Parts: sequence; structure tokens; C-alpha cells
Amino acid sequence: MPSEPIPPELDAFLAEPNMAVIGTLAGDGSPHTAATWYAWEDGRVYVNMEDTRRRLKHIRDDPRVSITVMGADEWYRQVTLRGRVASIEDDPQLEGVDRLARRYTGDAYPRGGGGRVGAWIEVESWYGWAGGQPWSGSD
Amino acid sequence: MPSEPIPPELDAFLAEPNMAVIGTLAGDGSPHTAATWYAWEDGRVYVNMEDTRRRLKHIRDDPRVSITVMGADEWYRQVTLRGRVASIEDDPQLEGVDRLARRYTGDAYPRGGGGRVGAWIEVESWYGWAGGQPWSGSD
Repeated sequence: MPSEPIPPELDAFLAEPNMAVIGTLAGDGSPHTAATWYAWEDGRVYVNMEDTRRRLKHIRDDPRVSITVMGADEWYRQVTLRGRVASIEDDPQLEGVDRLARRYTGDAYPRGGGGRVGAWIEVESWYGWAGGQPWSGSD
Repeated sequence: MPSEPIPPELDAFLAEPNMAVIGTLAGDGSPHTAATWYAWEDGRVYVNMEDTRRRLKHIRDDPRVSITVMGADEWYRQVTLRGRVASIEDDPQLEGVDRLARRYTGDAYPRGGGGRVGAWIEVESWYGWAGGQPWSGSD
């Protein structure tokens, strides 16, 4: 549970298929960032990646992550969620990535790619900006 | 200098006023992300922030950063630059933030806010994606 609850307007913003970037820690402790699809479900963040992605190794080694979500039309509206990966699950039937693909594209994820892995992130703190003003936050 | 030179099409992409998120390291070594304006000048990244921002303390403590830049219309076009903050400069005349504001909004930055600080980032490695395919890269 985040130290300050996420208010309804921010919950609604996170429910939109917005752009996001996830920050993870590389093996040498340096920050690594990558654009990502995400879903906001029951107060947790779901992401999914190819099993060859560097960030999969990163979150297996250190579960600490930070995700910045930006409004598609108006990226001055933004929320950053910081927390930890609570579980990592293989996605052999592509159910997880299909859920994300439908959310962002309206269609199932194309078949024929490599293996996929999903991860659930528990939010520990957050901060947000809207129109140049703080959108409250706990971080 | 990055371990692999940045090709012309990527250089042109970075020159556009695209959306970006910068990843830094918080004091406990955890990743922190924040949306940011940037400029791409002479092969280096320039960012600017209010002097109260957490990420300013982060880069003073540890210069390692990662920036993901996404196409405004088509965020599947993206480049991540990883490297180090090489210099941090106070921006008392707001020249630095004005340059960024003009790039993104067409106007000078509004007066009356807090102090601003600029930072130059030297790129050590990068990777990119375009249309679901790797855009080459050195990372």
C-alpha cells in the first residue's frame, strides 16, 4: 500500500492506456529506462516483456522500480509510481500481453514472437504533476 | 562518446521536441523517474530542473542517468540514452530553461518560479526501437 492513498482522479488517469517509462536497476546499480505498456489493476501495476529484455534480469536481481505515466495528449499530466516487483510470472499463453495489447491497440498481441513474462508491481509511493502544479503525492 | 556512434536518423529524432523520462538514483540506490524536457546539442543531452527537485540531489550524489525519448505521435519510436551528468550549472538568467521552453512551447519560460539548474549529460550507450524492431544500439 502506498504511504498516501491514490485519489480517484489519479486512479482514473492510470486506468487510461497512457504512455509509460519504467526505470530499473542494471547490474552495476545504474538506472535503466525503457518505454512500456502497463495496466493498472486493483491498485497494482502490471507490465509484460519479452523474456530476452534486460529489464527482466534487472527486476529479478533487484525488485525496485519506478514508472512514470504521461498523458497521451498532454504529457504535463503525469504520475510517477515507485515500488517493488512483487511477482514475476511466465506468460506462455500470452494472456498477459494480450490484455495489454487489447488495452493499447484493440487487438490481441501478434503471435510468433519470443517468450513473454509478466510482472506485478506494488506501489510504495507516488507523485504527480498536472498543468505545472503538484498533483499531491507521497514521494 | 557512446560505444557505438548515433546514426543520422536517430540524431534527427533526438533533435525533435519529443517526450522524455529521465531515470536517476535516489539516495537508497533505488530508481527514480520523472518526465522532462531535454535538448540534444552537439551529441550531449541538456536538461533543466527547479532547484528543489529530488532528481537534482540524485545527480549531485550519483551522476548516472538514463533517458528514454519517445515519439510524440508514435511512441513505439523510442531511444534510450544512458550516461553520466558531466556538469551541473545554475541557471540564474533562465537562459537554459528558456531554450527548452522555446523548443517545446515556442515561448520563453514563465518568470516568477523558483531557481533553475541545468545539467549536461554525456551519452555512454544507447538503444532504440522503431516499429517494433531494434533501432540498433550499443546497449
